Amino acid sequence: MAQDNLSVVLHAKGDLRLESRPVPEPGPNEVLLQMHSVGICGSDVHYWQHGRIGAFVLTKPMVLGHEAAGRVVKVGSGVKHLKVGDRVAIEPGVPREMDEFFKTGRYNLSPTIFFCATPPDDGNLCRYYTHSASFCYKLPDNVTFEEGALIEPLSVGIHACQRAGVTLGSTVFVCGAGPIGLVCLLVAKAMGASQVVISDLSEERLSMAKELGADFLLTVKSGDGPQELAKSVADMLGTRPHVTIECTGVESCIQTAIYTTRSGGVVVLVGLGSEMATVPLINAAVREVDIRGVFRYCNTWPMAIAMLASGKVNVKPLVTHRFPLEQAVQAFETTRQGLGIKVMLKCDKDDQNP
Amino acid sequence: MAQDNLSVVLHAKGDLRLESRPVPEPGPNEVLLQMHSVGICGSDVHYWQHGRIGAFVLTKPMVLGHEAAGRVVKVGSGVKHLKVGDRVAIEPGVPREMDEFFKTGRYNLSPTIFFCATPPDDGNLCRYYTHSASFCYKLPDNVTFEEGALIEPLSVGIHACQRAGVTLGSTVFVCGAGPIGLVCLLVAKAMGASQVVISDLSEERLSMAKELGADFLLTVKSGDGPQELAKSVADMLGTRPHVTIECTGVESCIQTAIYTTRSGGVVVLVGLGSEMATVPLINAAVREVDIRGVFRYCNTWPMAIAMLASGKVNVKPLVTHRFPLEQAVQAFETTRQGLGIKVMLKCDKDDQNP
Amino acid sequence: MAQDNLSVVLHAKGDLRLESRPVPEPGPNEVLLQMHSVGICGSDVHYWQHGRIGAFVLTKPMVLGHEAAGRVVKVGSGVKHLKVGDRVAIEPGVPREMDEFFKTGRYNLSPTIFFCATPPDDGNLCRYYTHSASFCYKLPDNVTFEEGALIEPLSVGIHACQRAGVTLGSTVFVCGAGPIGLVCLLVAKAMGASQVVISDLSEERLSMAKELGADFLLTVKSGDGPQELAKSVADMLGTRPHVTIECTGVESCIQTAIYTTRSGGVVVLVGLGSEMATVPLINAAVREVDIRGVFRYCNTWPMAIAMLASGKVNVKPLVTHRFPLEQAVQAFETTRQGLGIKVMLKCDKDDQNP
Amino acid sequence: MAQDNLSVVLHAKGDLRLESRPVPEPGPNEVLLQMHSVGICGSDVHYWQHGRIGAFVLTKPMVLGHEAAGRVVKVGSGVKHLKVGDRVAIEPGVPREMDEFFKTGRYNLSPTIFFCATPPDDGNLCRYYTHSASFCYKLPDNVTFEEGALIEPLSVGIHACQRAGVTLGSTVFVCGAGPIGLVCLLVAKAMGASQVVISDLSEERLSMAKELGADFLLTVKSGDGPQELAKSVADMLGTRPHVTIECTGVESCIQTAIYTTRSGGVVVLVGLGSEMATVPLINAAVREVDIRGVFRYCNTWPMAIAMLASGKVNVKPLVTHRFPLEQAVQAFETTRQGLGIKVMLKCDKDDQNP
Repeated sequence: MAQDNLSVVLHAKGDLRLESRPVPEPGPNEVLLQMHSVGICGSDVHYWQHGRIGAFVLTKPMVLGHEAAGRVVKVGSGVKHLKVGDRVAIEPGVPREMDEFFKTGRYNLSPTIFFCATPPDDGNLCRYYTHSASFCYKLPDNVTFEEGALIEPLSVGIHACQRAGVTLGSTVFVCGAGPIGLVCLLVAKAMGASQVVISDLSEERLSMAKELGADFLLTVKSGDGPQELAKSVADMLGTRPHVTIECTGVESCIQTAIYTTRSGGVVVLVGLGSEMATVPLINAAVREVDIRGVFRYCNTWPMAIAMLASGKVNVKPLVTHRFPLEQAVQAFETTRQGLGIKVMLKCDKDDQNP
Repeated sequence: MAQDNLSVVLHAKGDLRLESRPVPEPGPNEVLLQMHSVGICGSDVHYWQHGRIGAFVLTKPMVLGHEAAGRVVKVGSGVKHLKVGDRVAIEPGVPREMDEFFKTGRYNLSPTIFFCATPPDDGNLCRYYTHSASFCYKLPDNVTFEEGALIEPLSVGIHACQRAGVTLGSTVFVCGAGPIGLVCLLVAKAMGASQVVISDLSEERLSMAKELGADFLLTVKSGDGPQELAKSVADMLGTRPHVTIECTGVESCIQTAIYTTRSGGVVVLVGLGSEMATVPLINAAVREVDIRGVFRYCNTWPMAIAMLASGKVNVKPLVTHRFPLEQAVQAFETTRQGLGIKVMLKCDKDDQNP
Repeated sequence: MAQDNLSVVLHAKGDLRLESRPVPEPGPNEVLLQMHSVGICGSDVHYWQHGRIGAFVLTKPMVLGHEAAGRVVKVGSGVKHLKVGDRVAIEPGVPREMDEFFKTGRYNLSPTIFFCATPPDDGNLCRYYTHSASFCYKLPDNVTFEEGALIEPLSVGIHACQRAGVTLGSTVFVCGAGPIGLVCLLVAKAMGASQVVISDLSEERLSMAKELGADFLLTVKSGDGPQELAKSVADMLGTRPHVTIECTGVESCIQTAIYTTRSGGVVVLVGLGSEMATVPLINAAVREVDIRGVFRYCNTWPMAIAMLASGKVNVKPLVTHRFPLEQAVQAFETTRQGLGIKVMLKCDKDDQNP
Repeated sequence: MAQDNLSVVLHAKGDLRLESRPVPEPGPNEVLLQMHSVGICGSDVHYWQHGRIGAFVLTKPMVLGHEAAGRVVKVGSGVKHLKVGDRVAIEPGVPREMDEFFKTGRYNLSPTIFFCATPPDDGNLCRYYTHSASFCYKLPDNVTFEEGALIEPLSVGIHACQRAGVTLGSTVFVCGAGPIGLVCLLVAKAMGASQVVISDLSEERLSMAKELGADFLLTVKSGDGPQELAKSVADMLGTRPHVTIECTGVESCIQTAIYTTRSGGVVVLVGLGSEMATVPLINAAVREVDIRGVFRYCNTWPMAIAMLASGKVNVKPLVTHRFPLEQAVQAFETTRQGLGIKVMLKCDKDDQNP
C-alpha cells in the first residue's frame, strides 16, 4: 500500500482542501477499501458552508463523504464474509457500544455511534478507507458501484416508509421533491403504495418525480395555506392519504402534513427545520394521526441491495453529474448551487464507470 | 313501563334541568336499561358551562352522562347475549356505519359514531335508557355498578397505555394527576410498568396518586421550565422514561413530555389544549420519539371487566362523592368546584349502593 | 323487477341445477345487484362433488358462487355510499354480529358470519342477488367486472402475504402454483418481495407462474424429500426465504415449508389437508419460525381495488375460460377437470364483456 | 488473583468433576467476576446424564452453569459502565458476530452465539469467570444475587409471554407447572393477565403454582384426551384463553394447546419434545391461532431487573435448596431427582447469603 491517499478534507467552515493522507491499516474486524464512487449529500455541503449541523460542530479537520461504495483490497484477521476483490456498499453508521439501542435492533439511536463525516468522525471521500467489515455489504454483479453509493440516500427513504407503515394499497403524500423526497417516492411505490402525490415549489423537480413514477404532482406557491393544500391533496387522491412523508422541514408543510393525513394514519418527519415548530397537534391527536421522526436508518442495506439486484427500484436516473475526485471542489460547488439531483465523485483513477 | 323517567337535561349553556321524559322502547338490537350509577365527567361540566367542546355544539336539549352502568329490564327481539336482570356496563360510543374504521377495529375514529352526551346524541343520566346491546357488557357478580360506571374513565387510561405500548418493565411519566392521570397510573402499573413518576401542581392530587401506587411524585410550580422538569423526571427514575402520558394539554407540559422521553420512546397526548401548540418537534423527530394521540378508546370494556373481576385494578377509591339523581345539580356543582375525584350519581331509587 | 332470476343451485351432492328463483328485494341496508361476472372456485366444485367441506354440510339446496361483481339496480333506504348504476365487487363474507372479532378488525373469525355459498348461506351465481351494501365496493371505471370478481381469490393472496409480513426485499417461497399460489406470487411481488421461488408438480402451472413474475421455478417430483427440497429453495435464492406460503395442504410440503424458512421467519398455511399433520414442530420452534394460518381474509377489498386501478397488479391473465350463465354445468365440468386457471361465468345476457 | 478457581466440569456423559482451573484474565471488553450464586438448570442435568442435547454434543470437558450472578473484581480496559465491586447478573448468551439477527434485535437467533454451558462454550459454575461486560447487568441494592441468578429462568418466561403478546386482561393457559411453567405464570400475571389456568400431573407442583398466583389449577391424569382437557380449560375460564404457553413438549399437550386456544390467539411452544409431532395444524390454521416457538430470550435482563427492583415479581420462593459449590455433585443429584423447584449453588466461600 505505497499508494497515495488523496482525501477531501474540511478544515474549517468554508475551508475545503484536497490533501493526501496515509493509507490506513484495517483492524482485525475491518476491511481496507479502495473507494470507487461517493455521492455528495446536502449535509456535506452544509458542514462546508456552516461548519456545523445542530449540535455537531467541526472542531478539527474531517474527511467528508458518506454515500459510498468501493472494492475490498485488504481484510482484517477476523473477517469471514468478505475477501479481497469484493465490491461493497458502505453503511456509514457503526455502533461503538452494545447498548440497549443496538441490542434491540435500533442501533441508529445509539448516542455513541460512529458516523462517517459527522464530527469528529472522518468520512470516506478519499482513495483508501477502512471500515467495520460488518457494515460493508457485498454487491451482486448486476449492481453498480454508483447504485451501491446511492443505497445511503435510498436508505433514508426505506426507513421513512417503514416507519410510516407503507403497505399494499397505501395512498401517500410526499412533501418535497428533492433527492430525499424522490427516494421516498421510489420506495413507497416499491412497497405497494397505489397512489403517490408529491409536492414542490419547483416544476423541474416535479417533472423528475413524474418520470420516477409519481401519480400526482402538486405545485406549491409560497403563501398557499396549509388547509388549502391539504384539500388539494385529498382532491387529487379522491381520499385523504394514509401516510404523509414530510421532507422539507418547513413549519407550514408540517401543518399541511397533519391536516391532510387520514384519521388513524401517520405523518413521518424527515425534513429538519427550526428547533420549535407551531403545529395543530390537537388535530393530529384527536384523529390518532401518529407523528414519527426518523434518524438516518438501520437494517436497510440488505433490503436495498435485494431491490436493486431484482431491478424493482431504479435509482440510476438520480445521478445527474459526475466528477473525478481531483475535481471535488467543483463537484461541491455544483451541489451547493442545487444543480441536478445527485453529484457523484469518482475516486478510482482507473475506473470511472458508474 | 309506566314509570317516570327522570333525566338530567342540558337545555343551553348554563341551563341544566331535571325533567321527566318518556321511557323509551328498545329496538330489535337494543336493551332497555334501568340506570344505576352514572359518573360525572369533566366534559359534562364543560358542556354545562360552555355549551360546546370544540366542534361539538349544543343546539337542542341533550341528556348528559356517559360513565354508566345499569340493569337490563327489557331486551330487543334480536338480542341473544343479554337477558332481563343482567347487570351491565355501557360503552357510550356505538358506530353507526360499517366503514373502514369499524372494519379495521378502530371504530372510535368513525366520523358518524353515536356517542352519549356528545351533541346531538343523548346521554344516560336518567332513570331509563336504551342502548345497543352489543355495547352493553355483562358485569360479573363481584364487580359493582359503580366499578362498571368507572370503566369509562378507566378505558381512557387503557387506550392511552395501549397506544403507548406500556409493557413489562416500562418506566412511565404521567403528566397530570387528575382523574385521567390517575387511571393512566393504575393501568400502567397493571400492564407491568416498573416505575411511574406522576406530576401535578396540587399536593393533594399527588398524595392520592401515592396511595394508588405512584413510585415518584413531582410537584410542579408554575414557571418551572420544561427542560428542568424533564431533568427532574430522569433524575427520579435514574433513566429517561420509555413512555410519557400527557394528561394536561398545557403547551409547556407537552414540551416537557418530548424532552424527557427516551430515544425510541413514545409520548401519548391525552390532554387537550389549544388548537396550535409550539413544541420541539425536531427533538422528538431525530430521537424517534413517537407522538401519538388518543380519541376516546375502543375494545377496552372486556379487558377492563377482566381486570376488575380479578381484582388487579382497584378503582373504588376514585369515588369520593355520591348524590341521588334528584340532586344532580348539586353533584354537578361539586365537580365544577374540583372537589374530590369522581362524583357518582345514583339513579335507582331503590338501590343506592355502590 | 319482473325479470327472471336464473340461478345455479346445488340440490345435493352431484345434483347441480339451473333454475329460476324470485328476484329478491333489498333490505334497508342492502343493495340489489344484477350479477355480471362470477368465477368458479375450487370450493364450489368441492361442494358439488362431495356435498360438504369439513364441518360445512349441504342440507338444503344452495345457490353457488362467491367470486363476483355486478351492477347496482336498487338500493335500500339506509344506503348512502352506493346508487343505481354503480359497478361493484362483492365481499362474500358479512359478519352478522358485532362480536369481539368484528370489533377488533378480524371479522373473518366471527363464528356467525354470513358467507356466500357456504351452507346454509346462498351464493351469487345467478342473475339477481341482494347483499349488504357495506360489503359492496364501487369499482373505478378502469377496473373491469371480471377484475372485480377476481378480487376474491386475490384477497386470499393479500391476506396471506399480510399475515406473512411480506415487505420490501423479502425473499418468498410459494409452495404450489394453482390459482391461490399464483395470486400469492402476484401480491408478494407487489408488496416489495425481491425474489419469489414457486414450486409445483406441473410444468404447465410453473410456466404460467414464470409469466406472472416468478424469479425461480422449482419442479417437484413425487418422492422428493422435504429436506432436499428445502435445500433446493435455499440454493436458488442464495439464502433461506424470510417467508414461505404453503398453498397445497400436503403434509410433506408443510414439512418442507418449515425446514426451508429462515430463523425468525414465517410459514403461512393456506392449503388445507388432513385433520392431523406430522411436522417438525421443534425445528420451527427453536428457530422461532412462526406458523400462521389464514381463514379467508378481511379488509382486503379496498386495497385490492387500489392496486387494480393503479395497474400495479395484473390479474387478467388468470381468466382462461368464459361461459354464459346458461352453460354453468359445462363451466363447472371444466373447472373439475383442472383445465386452465380461472373459469368465469357471465351472468348478464346483454353484456358478456370482461 | 492468586486464588484457586474451583469449577464444576463435565468431562463426559455421567462424569462430573470438581476441579481447579486457572483464574482467567478479562479481555478489554470483559469483566472478571467472582461468582456468587448459580442455579442448576434442567439442561445442566441433561448434559450430565446424556452428554448432549439435540445437536449440541459434549466433545471436550465443559464447565456447567448459566443461571448466575457475581461480583466484579476486575474490569477490562474498554469497559465503562461497570466498576470493581459492582454486583451483576449475567446474561449467558453473547453474540459473536454482528450478523442480521444481532442487527435486527434478535441476537438469540444468531447461529454463532456464545452460550454458557452449551458445548463447546464453558459455563460459570466456578469461583472466577470472565464475561462480556455488555452482557453483565448491574443489580440494584435491593435485588439479591440469587434473584440475579434467577433472571435467567425468569427470562424464558418473559420471552415466552412477549412472544405470546400477553397484555392487559389476557386469559392464559400454562401447560406444565415445572420451574419454567411457574415463571411463565409469574410473568403473565405481571404483564396484566387477568386469569391464568395452569396444569400439571403433580398436585405438589400445582400447589406451588397456587401460592404464586395461579387462578385455576388443572390436574391432568395420563390418558386424558386433548379435546376434553381443552374443554376443561375453557370451562374454568368461562371462555377460551387468548394465549397458551406450552411448557412440557409432550405431543398430546401441544394438541391440547391448539384445541383450547381462542380463534385469533397464540400458542407458544416452550417445552421441547421429539423431532416430529402430530398435531391438528388445520384446526389452528383456519382459526388463525398462531404457533410460535421461543429460543432462549433476548433483551430481557433490563426489564427483569426493573421488575425485581420494584417488587412486582417475587421469584424468591422458587429457591428450595442451597449447596456450597464444594457440594455440587449432591446439588446436581437433588435436581436430577426432581426435588423442590430450584437448587442454588453458593460459589463465594465468604458469603453464602441469598
